[in-house]
Amino acid sequence: MDLSNKKCKPYEGGVTPLNDEEIAEYRKHIRDDWKVIENRKILKEYLFVNYRHSMDFINKVANIAEEEGHHPVMHVFYGKVVIELWTQAIDGLAENDFIMAFKIDVL
Amino acid sequence: MDLSNKKCKPYEGGVTPLNDEEIAEYRKHIRDDWKVIENRKILKEYLFVNYRHSMDFINKVANIAEEEGHHPVMHVFYGKVVIELWTQAIDGLAENDFIMAFKIDVL
Repeated sequence: MDLSNKKCKPYEGGVTPLNDEEIAEYRKHIRDDWKVIENRKILKEYLFVNYRHSMDFINKVANIAEEEGHHPVMHVFYGKVVIELWTQAIDGLAENDFIMAFKIDVL
Repeated sequence: MDLSNKKCKPYEGGVTPLNDEEIAEYRKHIRDDWKVIENRKILKEYLFVNYRHSMDFINKVANIAEEEGHHPVMHVFYGKVVIELWTQAIDGLAENDFIMAFKIDVL
């Protein structure tokens, strides 16, 4: 599995959320500081020296989100950004979430 | 009280959080869809048609935050932004928070 070459796919219905085993497999392909929350979402904290740096980061994430058509929830603090990824249409995790996580980490 | 002409002041110590009465007074000078949470923070939800519009908004808020030296926590969803204001140094509300709320509302 090489997430770097993948693009997020538009949701077309009939997709089920990744199961525990699949999540564990995808998990290996992103950095290990992503937390898996109840096998329904993934979350990561990024630390920055100030607000401007936090803002620069989330603008880059937003650009990827627009390119990929998959939009994380972002929490912006003075020197910290928390990124949350899940797939709303299935209320769980899909490949798209791991593709986004991978692309955010190589920013 | 005219918040539009005020600027946020740097914290210089010895400041106590606004009390209930003072909060009620400041509250009158910002739009009434700001929620006061336990008299310790104020919070408002802004709705947008898409992520790009949410991002445009938070970038404008971040510019004001940098100008004023007072930085809200911002939660960014696809079509919604939640802004939270409080003054960390006093773990409560200060005039700065209401000045920021006022300035965000007139963006």
